[in-house]
Amino acid sequence: MKTLVIVSHPNLQESLNQQFFKEASKSLAITWHHLESVYPTGEINLNDELALLAAHDRIIFQFPLYWYSAPAHLKIWQDTVLAKASKVLQGKEFGVVVTTGVAEKEYQAGGKEEFTLSEFLRPYQRIAHKFQMNYLPPFVLAQFMYQTSEVRFERLIAYQQYLSLTGKPSLVQRINWFLEQIEKKSHFSEPQKSYLLDGLKEQQEMIEDLTFTLGELKEENE
Amino acid sequence: MKTLVIVSHPNLQESLNQQFFKEASKSLAITWHHLESVYPTGEINLNDELALLAAHDRIIFQFPLYWYSAPAHLKIWQDTVLAKASKVLQGKEFGVVVTTGVAEKEYQAGGKEEFTLSEFLRPYQRIAHKFQMNYLPPFVLAQFMYQTSEVRFERLIAYQQYLSLTGKPSLVQRINWFLEQIEKKSHFSEPQKSYLLDGLKEQQEMIEDLTFTLGELKEENE
Repeated sequence: MKTLVIVSHPNLQESLNQQFFKEASKSLAITWHHLESVYPTGEINLNDELALLAAHDRIIFQFPLYWYSAPAHLKIWQDTVLAKASKVLQGKEFGVVVTTGVAEKEYQAGGKEEFTLSEFLRPYQRIAHKFQMNYLPPFVLAQFMYQTSEVRFERLIAYQQYLSLTGKPSLVQRINWFLEQIEKKSHFSEPQKSYLLDGLKEQQEMIEDLTFTLGELKEENE
Repeated sequence: MKTLVIVSHPNLQESLNQQFFKEASKSLAITWHHLESVYPTGEINLNDELALLAAHDRIIFQFPLYWYSAPAHLKIWQDTVLAKASKVLQGKEFGVVVTTGVAEKEYQAGGKEEFTLSEFLRPYQRIAHKFQMNYLPPFVLAQFMYQTSEVRFERLIAYQQYLSLTGKPSLVQRINWFLEQIEKKSHFSEPQKSYLLDGLKEQQEMIEDLTFTLGELKEENE
């Protein structure tokens, strides 16, 4: 599966979230497409964009939540490209990777942000449905910089799986992917390796647990 | 009450909806602020915008729904201005005037657009709450060009009231406003006058009905 990550962030170099994503995706066969770098003036090349979309099976919008939606650059892209993109999008997978400085639990009735992220992201969900695309549950990275290294590692793995595993993967598919990755450790980037080493003992226990769960699941299916 | 109408539309001259709004607002003491005209390159003057916001009591975002949110130019404005606008917005009124080419009934579960306009407009609702502004029910103009002249006239009156009546006006306030407007007909613009003449007979009956209702309401309150 070929994944196109359309990134919108006005100061990519200063964003620790986006640097984390970029490092995490280095070992994967994905196309990283940062709109503000490619089109600094906001003048989008429609044909280039349509060709990019045509060449990939999973399209990801990746951005920080600015006023409860994507930064302006991604909206320029949407207003320019989407009206012409029906043929190249139909039937593909569509995901949203969103970062927020507010804790995820604030996005609910009674929370500080009042409404759920599912509600704020309705426009993207609806775009996916309009193009008969498969809308994936959004990948949310909230207050990442306050997280422990264990949580960060978990999010790194989850992000890599979000970009590279087809459809909505089952637990077994996720575990298999994880075991494969551990085996071919050479594919990990430097920050990933240091995460791995940092948490190696815990990870090994986790893998044993996961392998045990996998065994149980397999037995159940026999 | 001073109303600022922040309009975002990439081709204002070609939009019959926006021309209708512009004509309808001519007789009113409002500020019409079309972003694509004032800032064609998208380079926003922050201080000018803050001064404009400070000088008005009701702020309106007026736009066609593009991919379930405002056109990119308004998002550029939001990303530039809102982070600095807390002091000048607090406690004011905030409204959204939205046009759509799809019938309003399609915006519901089971309808073609799946979700309600209230849901798609959550980001604006949330912005209003964040600045402790009073969020007005959005003003929706759907498939305006397919409407009868009677419906158009009704929408014209409703739009003028949306821009100029304080808060969430009662029926009595709306009727009083309407009667006042009829009395000072000279304030109507040419298209408004032609609407008035077109439907004069029906309008007169309506006014009689409204006056009668007003009388009843007044009696009830005595």
